[in-house]
Amino acid sequence: MSESMNIQMNPIGLVETDVADADMSGRRRTLISDIVIFDEHVPALLGISDYSHIVVLFWMHDAEPSEKSVVHPRGNVDLPLTGILASRGRGHPNPIGLAVCDLLNVDGGRLTVRRLDAYNGTPILDIKPYDSYDAYADIRMPEWLARRSKSTTA
Amino acid sequence: MSESMNIQMNPIGLVETDVADADMSGRRRTLISDIVIFDEHVPALLGISDYSHIVVLFWMHDAEPSEKSVVHPRGNVDLPLTGILASRGRGHPNPIGLAVCDLLNVDGGRLTVRRLDAYNGTPILDIKPYDSYDAYADIRMPEWLARRSKSTTA
Repeated sequence: MSESMNIQMNPIGLVETDVADADMSGRRRTLISDIVIFDEHVPALLGISDYSHIVVLFWMHDAEPSEKSVVHPRGNVDLPLTGILASRGRGHPNPIGLAVCDLLNVDGGRLTVRRLDAYNGTPILDIKPYDSYDAYADIRMPEWLARRSKSTTA
Repeated sequence: MSESMNIQMNPIGLVETDVADADMSGRRRTLISDIVIFDEHVPALLGISDYSHIVVLFWMHDAEPSEKSVVHPRGNVDLPLTGILASRGRGHPNPIGLAVCDLLNVDGGRLTVRRLDAYNGTPILDIKPYDSYDAYADIRMPEWLARRSKSTTA
């Protein structure tokens, strides 16, 4: 095991959305997209519709790892310098996207979800059912982020 | 973009735990482990201690993708056949582990966490701060799983 160990993955499906990349930011709470799982993996979805929410892991294939270790979140210099790994933004060393989504419909290998902030054509790495281990009621986060969360909660 | 698109990653750190692999099952709620982030990524942790919880993505390097699409969860034949992708067990096509962990301490690149069900030496792919987008109070899951969750909630 070392830092140069190479890990390889293949996508299990793709994102389909009509929303243009540039229009996605700030709309996450209402975004509705489809995840299209490749045929070979469709049988492995059995039972997924028993869950109200899924965790979606995707590969942000156009997101280069950040050259800087710290950034101002969303490029806003009024927000404190924050490490890339302490941020949900782009630029992580391995650009894996993670979204907890409402699972609205399942039709064969086509999963319709809300709150997936992934561009059209994004490769899907994995989906997992969301369960009580993932749900924390009492969480702490930086004051500036908590303020934003409160003001935008639907 | 195709099913054979190859995606490559490198670990950003490793798990350190004294708990033997065989003793890990069923102890998740009390497990305490360290995540040791490689030196080059330590500056990218700035601000992580402002969060009470983090999402940890890890590479289950010894978990082969399942040859079967459906399994009985935990090998228990009393539980309904469930698709691999509708299960939190091992055997996903890309064996990425995901755990939401309590972040107990940060000392340089050493993060001490609770609830990380990853074996000693497991490569870490990414960490993300857990925020209000990840936290759902009202979730639905299969009846057999909800029953188990209720009976084991600390």
